[in-house]
Amino acid sequence: MAMENLKQFLVALSAAGAVGFVAIIFVLRWVLHFKEGLAWDGGLAEFNWHPVLIVTGFIFLQGIAIIVYRLPWTWQCSKLMMKFIHAGLNSAAFIFAVVAVVAAFDFHNTAKIPNMYSLHSWLGLITVILYSLQLVLGVGMYLIPVTPVSWRAAFMPIHIYSGLFLFTSVIAVALMGITEKLIFGLSNPKYKDSPPEAIFVNILGVLLVVFGALILWIATRTSWKRPSDQILHALHSNGESEDNSKVGPALSELAEGTDAEAGGDVRRRF
Amino acid sequence: MAMENLKQFLVALSAAGAVGFVAIIFVLRWVLHFKEGLAWDGGLAEFNWHPVLIVTGFIFLQGIAIIVYRLPWTWQCSKLMMKFIHAGLNSAAFIFAVVAVVAAFDFHNTAKIPNMYSLHSWLGLITVILYSLQLVLGVGMYLIPVTPVSWRAAFMPIHIYSGLFLFTSVIAVALMGITEKLIFGLSNPKYKDSPPEAIFVNILGVLLVVFGALILWIATRTSWKRPSDQILHALHSNGESEDNSKVGPALSELAEGTDAEAGGDVRRRF
Repeated sequence: MAMENLKQFLVALSAAGAVGFVAIIFVLRWVLHFKEGLAWDGGLAEFNWHPVLIVTGFIFLQGIAIIVYRLPWTWQCSKLMMKFIHAGLNSAAFIFAVVAVVAAFDFHNTAKIPNMYSLHSWLGLITVILYSLQLVLGVGMYLIPVTPVSWRAAFMPIHIYSGLFLFTSVIAVALMGITEKLIFGLSNPKYKDSPPEAIFVNILGVLLVVFGALILWIATRTSWKRPSDQILHALHSNGESEDNSKVGPALSELAEGTDAEAGGDVRRRF
Repeated sequence: MAMENLKQFLVALSAAGAVGFVAIIFVLRWVLHFKEGLAWDGGLAEFNWHPVLIVTGFIFLQGIAIIVYRLPWTWQCSKLMMKFIHAGLNSAAFIFAVVAVVAAFDFHNTAKIPNMYSLHSWLGLITVILYSLQLVLGVGMYLIPVTPVSWRAAFMPIHIYSGLFLFTSVIAVALMGITEKLIFGLSNPKYKDSPPEAIFVNILGVLLVVFGALILWIATRTSWKRPSDQILHALHSNGESEDNSKVGPALSELAEGTDAEAGGDVRRRF
């Protein structure tokens, strides 16, 4: 990565981290200050685990999992180690999501509210199921050593597309969930009277969209990709003695040769 | 495009067209059969223009606008002509969206319901404003002849990212709108009692997500891209006498040389 490129990456990464962190603070303040707090009692305080776990796990952790290969200081780690971190973060996000769904069902059952009637619940459940499929296929394809390299290559565009699509879907489903909760949870003043809680949680929704936008931007810049293993190996044998500050830029100048889309291809077209 | 590749493209395109068409039928049946029909009277029948115009214009037309460069039978048209079609479809989508927003505000004002209190309205208005900015910047960059080629190239990744992001956002905002309308519009039986309208409109929501997924898939496959003008020119001078069935595959073999991401790059990484 050239210096300017690295700087832009760090700005985008810091922004994503900051916005994600503020979103977590917002969801915690929502349930602890405006609502009934957190508990596991079948009541509203149990339901509150639902938004907290979705924002911290299914959105924030999944977002980090998606861009973990992009962090330049991990490029000295082996690809296998990074795959385990990627799979581990996604598995953690999945567990958060499952507990979040259980909290919502528990609350519904105790309060005798029907389950699975809303578009939020339909799309949410579909997303969790497809996410588990993505996890299983991802482990099967990229962590089981016997999977042929040709299968791995053929499946990679689908893995990337599905990952980004599911991440986006989780945020869209969360926005519908926020809408439902603000309508059902606010009365006297109602949602339409814009009490402080309504404004506060609307801002949480905007933060989630901005976090999603930043993660998708980082994930789709080809010049921020981890250099391929061949290049890293070549560097390890030639440049072992150099210090890290020199390895960084050198790595990326080589790496930029491997991705054509960012520059050449676009320029040729317009 | 190789034959197999072309076939896959046509399957994806037909699926997107069919799902988009069914979604339009669904939104029409929703307002005409289940709700108050269509009128411009400040009442609920005026509000009904809101979902109809969003689905037909801001979602379906915008989706077509995004993938219009991908249609192989347009590759014989000049790039400039295709840019006008792309800009024209996006402008039409924008007009649909503006009229849709006016219908919602009109209804609110007549019924004395506050405007702009919900997350749906916040994100919806932000999306319409950013979409108008995208239109103005797109025309300024790519249709005004004096804009330097270096600017066009530098802005292209942002134009593509913003276009796909805005399209996705419109669908997410529509899902929130559906959620609001089903909660506010259904009473006795309520949304949670799952009357036929609730199930029907939930399915509309799922169709919109599938339509979005298909458009995003088509738009992000590099091997389905329109070949660059140089290649088309080369072909025009060399292969003028060949019939179309031969031009098709020849074009794409050349074109595939220009996009590295689809094959080579991924294979080298895994």
